[in-house]
Amino acid sequence: MKKLIKNGIIVTASDTYKADLLIENGVISGIGTNLSPADAEVVDAKGCYVLPGGIDPHTHLDMPFGGTVTKDDFETGTIAAAFGGTTSIIDFCLTNKGEPLKTAIETWHKKSNGKAVIDYGFHLMIGEINENVLNELPQVIEEEGITSFKVFMAYKNVFQADDETLFRTLLAAKDLGALVMVHAENGDVIDFLTKRALAEGKTEPIYHALTRPPEVEGEATGRAAQLAGLADSQLYVVHVSCAEAVEKISEARAKGFDIWGETCPQYLVLDESYLEKPDFEGAKYVWSPPLREKWNQDVLWNALKTGQLQTLGSDQCSFDFQGQKDLGKDDFTKIPNGGPIIEDRLSILFSEGVSKGRIDLHQFVDITSTRIAKLFGLYPQKGTIAVGADADIVIFDPLIERTLSAKTHHMAVDYNAFEGMKVTGEPVSVLVRGEFVIRDKKFVGNLGSGKYLKRAKYKQYTCKNQNETVSIQPS
Amino acid sequence: MKKLIKNGIIVTASDTYKADLLIENGVISGIGTNLSPADAEVVDAKGCYVLPGGIDPHTHLDMPFGGTVTKDDFETGTIAAAFGGTTSIIDFCLTNKGEPLKTAIETWHKKSNGKAVIDYGFHLMIGEINENVLNELPQVIEEEGITSFKVFMAYKNVFQADDETLFRTLLAAKDLGALVMVHAENGDVIDFLTKRALAEGKTEPIYHALTRPPEVEGEATGRAAQLAGLADSQLYVVHVSCAEAVEKISEARAKGFDIWGETCPQYLVLDESYLEKPDFEGAKYVWSPPLREKWNQDVLWNALKTGQLQTLGSDQCSFDFQGQKDLGKDDFTKIPNGGPIIEDRLSILFSEGVSKGRIDLHQFVDITSTRIAKLFGLYPQKGTIAVGADADIVIFDPLIERTLSAKTHHMAVDYNAFEGMKVTGEPVSVLVRGEFVIRDKKFVGNLGSGKYLKRAKYKQYTCKNQNETVSIQPS
Amino acid sequence: MKKLIKNGIIVTASDTYKADLLIENGVISGIGTNLSPADAEVVDAKGCYVLPGGIDPHTHLDMPFGGTVTKDDFETGTIAAAFGGTTSIIDFCLTNKGEPLKTAIETWHKKSNGKAVIDYGFHLMIGEINENVLNELPQVIEEEGITSFKVFMAYKNVFQADDETLFRTLLAAKDLGALVMVHAENGDVIDFLTKRALAEGKTEPIYHALTRPPEVEGEATGRAAQLAGLADSQLYVVHVSCAEAVEKISEARAKGFDIWGETCPQYLVLDESYLEKPDFEGAKYVWSPPLREKWNQDVLWNALKTGQLQTLGSDQCSFDFQGQKDLGKDDFTKIPNGGPIIEDRLSILFSEGVSKGRIDLHQFVDITSTRIAKLFGLYPQKGTIAVGADADIVIFDPLIERTLSAKTHHMAVDYNAFEGMKVTGEPVSVLVRGEFVIRDKKFVGNLGSGKYLKRAKYKQYTCKNQNETVSIQPS
Amino acid sequence: MKKLIKNGIIVTASDTYKADLLIENGVISGIGTNLSPADAEVVDAKGCYVLPGGIDPHTHLDMPFGGTVTKDDFETGTIAAAFGGTTSIIDFCLTNKGEPLKTAIETWHKKSNGKAVIDYGFHLMIGEINENVLNELPQVIEEEGITSFKVFMAYKNVFQADDETLFRTLLAAKDLGALVMVHAENGDVIDFLTKRALAEGKTEPIYHALTRPPEVEGEATGRAAQLAGLADSQLYVVHVSCAEAVEKISEARAKGFDIWGETCPQYLVLDESYLEKPDFEGAKYVWSPPLREKWNQDVLWNALKTGQLQTLGSDQCSFDFQGQKDLGKDDFTKIPNGGPIIEDRLSILFSEGVSKGRIDLHQFVDITSTRIAKLFGLYPQKGTIAVGADADIVIFDPLIERTLSAKTHHMAVDYNAFEGMKVTGEPVSVLVRGEFVIRDKKFVGNLGSGKYLKRAKYKQYTCKNQNETVSIQPS
Repeated sequence: MKKLIKNGIIVTASDTYKADLLIENGVISGIGTNLSPADAEVVDAKGCYVLPGGIDPHTHLDMPFGGTVTKDDFETGTIAAAFGGTTSIIDFCLTNKGEPLKTAIETWHKKSNGKAVIDYGFHLMIGEINENVLNELPQVIEEEGITSFKVFMAYKNVFQADDETLFRTLLAAKDLGALVMVHAENGDVIDFLTKRALAEGKTEPIYHALTRPPEVEGEATGRAAQLAGLADSQLYVVHVSCAEAVEKISEARAKGFDIWGETCPQYLVLDESYLEKPDFEGAKYVWSPPLREKWNQDVLWNALKTGQLQTLGSDQCSFDFQGQKDLGKDDFTKIPNGGPIIEDRLSILFSEGVSKGRIDLHQFVDITSTRIAKLFGLYPQKGTIAVGADADIVIFDPLIERTLSAKTHHMAVDYNAFEGMKVTGEPVSVLVRGEFVIRDKKFVGNLGSGKYLKRAKYKQYTCKNQNETVSIQPS
Repeated sequence: MKKLIKNGIIVTASDTYKADLLIENGVISGIGTNLSPADAEVVDAKGCYVLPGGIDPHTHLDMPFGGTVTKDDFETGTIAAAFGGTTSIIDFCLTNKGEPLKTAIETWHKKSNGKAVIDYGFHLMIGEINENVLNELPQVIEEEGITSFKVFMAYKNVFQADDETLFRTLLAAKDLGALVMVHAENGDVIDFLTKRALAEGKTEPIYHALTRPPEVEGEATGRAAQLAGLADSQLYVVHVSCAEAVEKISEARAKGFDIWGETCPQYLVLDESYLEKPDFEGAKYVWSPPLREKWNQDVLWNALKTGQLQTLGSDQCSFDFQGQKDLGKDDFTKIPNGGPIIEDRLSILFSEGVSKGRIDLHQFVDITSTRIAKLFGLYPQKGTIAVGADADIVIFDPLIERTLSAKTHHMAVDYNAFEGMKVTGEPVSVLVRGEFVIRDKKFVGNLGSGKYLKRAKYKQYTCKNQNETVSIQPS
Repeated sequence: MKKLIKNGIIVTASDTYKADLLIENGVISGIGTNLSPADAEVVDAKGCYVLPGGIDPHTHLDMPFGGTVTKDDFETGTIAAAFGGTTSIIDFCLTNKGEPLKTAIETWHKKSNGKAVIDYGFHLMIGEINENVLNELPQVIEEEGITSFKVFMAYKNVFQADDETLFRTLLAAKDLGALVMVHAENGDVIDFLTKRALAEGKTEPIYHALTRPPEVEGEATGRAAQLAGLADSQLYVVHVSCAEAVEKISEARAKGFDIWGETCPQYLVLDESYLEKPDFEGAKYVWSPPLREKWNQDVLWNALKTGQLQTLGSDQCSFDFQGQKDLGKDDFTKIPNGGPIIEDRLSILFSEGVSKGRIDLHQFVDITSTRIAKLFGLYPQKGTIAVGADADIVIFDPLIERTLSAKTHHMAVDYNAFEGMKVTGEPVSVLVRGEFVIRDKKFVGNLGSGKYLKRAKYKQYTCKNQNETVSIQPS
Repeated sequence: MKKLIKNGIIVTASDTYKADLLIENGVISGIGTNLSPADAEVVDAKGCYVLPGGIDPHTHLDMPFGGTVTKDDFETGTIAAAFGGTTSIIDFCLTNKGEPLKTAIETWHKKSNGKAVIDYGFHLMIGEINENVLNELPQVIEEEGITSFKVFMAYKNVFQADDETLFRTLLAAKDLGALVMVHAENGDVIDFLTKRALAEGKTEPIYHALTRPPEVEGEATGRAAQLAGLADSQLYVVHVSCAEAVEKISEARAKGFDIWGETCPQYLVLDESYLEKPDFEGAKYVWSPPLREKWNQDVLWNALKTGQLQTLGSDQCSFDFQGQKDLGKDDFTKIPNGGPIIEDRLSILFSEGVSKGRIDLHQFVDITSTRIAKLFGLYPQKGTIAVGADADIVIFDPLIERTLSAKTHHMAVDYNAFEGMKVTGEPVSVLVRGEFVIRDKKFVGNLGSGKYLKRAKYKQYTCKNQNETVSIQPS
């Protein structure tokens, strides 16, 4: 059945205008004034923005970490995402050295299949490069549509890859048309600082931040950028948290390197002092990279504004405070890293960014959706409101004021990282491929309705034109 | 009457998709698949891009300079612009010290009224700041809708303003909601170098470039940026030609200053060596700032790609080679500065930029139209293809190959600055507010059909939402 | 008569060692162990450093300013300098437009002749460049030995020169072998900010700082550096006060420009908050450029340490608090700019720099003496302890602790800018050309014993070697 | 017996003056005019500079590498050094993992003892940090006087240490008072590029350069600097070859990090094109880092001039062209890295630097001797001409013109890296601790007369003053 969204203000990464939106077969088929097909269900969006659904490029659902497993899986995680206005995610598929990539991918399909209520794709972690891996990669891209690889420069003896692995992944990605994502922190230095802190009896959460200072992120970011430039390949730096890293990315871009940067809501509004909260509450704020001194927030906001950073991921990786975070009660290194962010990503960026004038509405859409779709091979199916695109739509009321809280959120964890924070704006209804998942703030979707997304190669979106194909590269 | 543009690929600053476009009353009223109102004239755009009309933020039509007058006036200039896919221009209204601003504006209305075939607005030159000027400015903005002021840091004893004038203009603009544009070259140093060169018998065109080296542009750009930052005001640097200036703009933006940069086609594809062409032909390539060493082109392209420069102006300022440029046959300082660029601005950026993979299609649209509309208070009436916007449309065939030449161009001058250059892509038909001005490469417009554009204040475009107005700032 | 300084630790810009020092005819004739000529007066320097006399490159003695005259003239000023360990100064000879340079120089000779107790030279202010000035300059250099020119970018309508004058001075200096000194603040902006502040009733001393923020110094420094680079000439930026200016100098040096920077004691240890002292006491701390936020001090110290700034001047320009500074009681613009620093320059740099480990002893000597001698054509006659050099010697006890105060200082003014500051180290005895001026902390010199210093051209110090002259450039 | 060097021009890192020099018991005891002790041998230095002996901070004598051993040992190497005006060296003592440091040091004592004709010390390579190493280090410093540690970031699987080792070495050095030296190239990337090149059949010498591009040096330099800053420790980057690395060092110094940089003669005057010499001759020019594109030379010279680089080492590591370099005839990775430079270090810096006006005479002395002595704990015993210092003296004729060549050099290898290069200036006679080693260009020394140098801790040179010790830090 058709749907007609009327009276809303449509917003894209470049435009804002009043118009009605017609959806047929899950796809946007028309935008206009006074559209009134007889057979369409009318949805009133009066007073609301009609936004392309958010795309979260950075989630860890149902992921084992440090002897436990993230609390949110593809069910609770995607429901919470939908409440927050996110209609697609790309989750990280972890691999094990020596094991076929295929095995890991199958594991991730099992985790997600039949559960997700929004669409999803996978990034693939690369922990080693050898003949087996190189042989498998073309299939990963062609058959699975996994066109982004993640390399960790931190987590020594766990995920950490050496520089040769990073460099070869960059070279392979260039040949194959994939985008390399990097967790940029110097794992060697962190490992030593961590062990030293423990040996000195420094076990509280704040030492998590103090043992991975901004210098180690800046260093690793610069290193990754330099290797990407040398490889003439493409790089995406995840969860940028500090001025040091922003500078390295800007320098690399000024040299003409093809480098992108993502930050996360937590780095924009929280700071290092949260790790010092009493009664072990600091553990709720343990991310890697850690929260930084407050002044870094201005740098990150300005980087989003001027385009030196381009996207916002959640780095969703949730653990209960009771029963999980407290594994590290006597040893901060045992605190599972990460937090529940998937639901509030858009709300925070809108409220702190758009409402406070730090970025504009179009940037908001670009940063949370369009740019991500373009970088990760989902555009133009996802990431915008345009004729022919999937009808992934958020009806967003910009004037609602509310308070973020674990009491009201839909993530499976027992705390909210932004507890008590007042925000302006809320997703009221959310559609995925034309079907309501959230309607008037209630979940109305079906488990397993989310589809797996095979993604296009990096910069390979094309639009046929006469007898020639013109590539639409993200830039 | 309605028009229906079918089968084209619609391109905006963020999107590319196949759809039909419906125009009613000069405005875009619908975008969709299989639109087929009975009463619409159908225009077939098969194989073509359907682009928002170009906006040229930097033209000098019918302008007196050095004892002569630019060859193209609002008639020939706007016709040529239309052929090139430009549907709006903003021309510089020159003022005289001691004279009311009103007088100058009236003069410019007289030059343009009844002649222009596309829409047009004015920037206002500020040569002095005093009580009279400060008293007049609010009316200029409110009544005339002139919301951008131009200050010259060069042309000593002619247009040049001192730093106090620039600084006070920035302060006034901040209060009033205008954008300050600056011609950034150190006029004092140029004046001396010029006089010295002549005294040494150095009279050939190449000395135009040698007496205004990149250092003087870099210096003045940095100075203007610093003053804008200090004034906490907004600045737009016109015709950026070299790496030195790009660096200053990037540094200022990284500090959070609200600063924008424009370059021109000539700086992207021509270089200093053109000034050494024999038989005085170098005079054709006399711009201020001058053409630079070729390596600067890579810097400019990368700056457009990474968003460190945001717009492309033509700096249209045309003089015949015979009879005008040759005023400077024995003295390069007497060569009228400028060239005929208004017609080829889009073609060059598309061919050298998009077709060669330096920027993407969306950036092309943003740089030539959308961003300009947003910065200069024309958005959302102009600058995009969206429901409710003026139907300023270019039907652009991206595959046509042709050669730029004075023989085929429509500007009134006797030479083309890009003579013999092969480009890919051509505007086939051009509509202004829903009416054809160019149809199948033929002029079909009417003199005087272009309308004067009163522009909104800087960052004051708003979209009403319920009971609140949300500002859509350019960022 | 010979003098033999025994038992001291001799310190130069590169060396520290124990040895005795023999002086004959006012010149150092021998350095060694166990020197014991029968006919020498023995001076015991046990426990003391034996330093080359300080050279102050930046003094304003007996200078008219704002309707009054600096309190210290060549008598009190040079006596105070001597007490502080300074044995030579270079004072600024102010010129008037339209008047022969010769006239100004004669005026300055009259001010100093018969008064100075240490040696002195002049810098020449350049306020305009025209044929007369250009014709006179060679004589100024050849006959007067004035090989440094000062250009003001601030003090609009008083000293301020425009960019053409600065640029032409740089070119002339290059040809003639002089060093151009620049007061780098944007006078236009300051002038406006000042007038605006007064119009708003902001009359207190703190507005002196707020109307000349660091941005105007950074801007002017960058501009001067850029012009010097373009002129391929040499530049010396006086009284650098802030990070913005240091950055510009460093950038210019990294490009290979021949640029030097001086800071002053006040910028190293005082800060903007002093201007807010109650009871108009802030007026004592009115310098141009003004004192800055405290964090700039770290930047300045690091710049001295790494060689990005090279010298320390006093910018001595003293006015009584009662009767002079209070001319500005109701209007900060009427507060005479400057302060009494000539006496404490070495003590502050030693105590805060060497004793606190920010710079080393050799840098202390270089910064206060040797580098200055080399840059301003006094080396090797002045600026070091080496055989053949003038016996300008300071016997400096590094362990004495004392408190700076107007009660004990020897300057003619009624306050001390560092009142109450505890310092370590004191000049005990001071010799000029082998004669005591200060002996055991008592003045024993003769008025008028100071000699006028004709200085060599920039980088023209040479040492004859066989049949060739090898130039010893400062670098 | 005493010696009196008469008529020369004494040059130190800060001074140049004519004086006679008296030597007693191997130490400088007096400097003066008309010194004439009856019992002194008179040495005439007319027309010559009298310089402090050069100190080479970077030599590899008698070092095993790639299955062969450097041609020059402590006999031929130090004789050649002496001919070149070098009177002390600090050689790298290589260690093996798992072996006591003591063992390596003993090996190096055996290599040098009884052979060296000039004084020598050792740096100690750190390949791993563990309890054994940490336990041994205090003895290394206190007993052996080895106060500098070398860490390799390149030579994977051979010398390369990981970042944890580097970081812990920096921390240990800070505690113990040692200076960490780093070979800064990314060994991981080089290893891969090298293997790939060979796999592609690229075996010629030029691939040595192409597989270790400047990016890998810039990256590693930035990384080492960042780790040093984080550790708040001191770092010395050896053999800086390119602009990328200079930038990283300058940035770190501007942040206040305690970082120093050394370059080598080969990087100042040779370039990458030498590796393409026919008939495998390119192998003579195989250094790591490799020779760079020629424009880097200007950057290096300017860095020496402005103090962003501070020292010149030879990186002496000589192999015969016939029989050693040709091990790599079919595989550039088998070419022993390094070349014969120890003899020509001073001559090249003087001729290309001082004579051509790129640096001044005092910088020449500082760069080749004084600064090195200060950084490596040899000052004031070594590194200057001052009363009390060892009489390590070079009598240097600045006007002699000669041609560098294997035919005339004294190194044991069959080629000279600067074959045919014309230089101005030559060491005529060289004394170590008052005894001639070279006299009138002839070797007159005795094998084994060179003494092992126990060095002071970093920045621990002190000069007793009354009852307090004042530290003379290098800065």
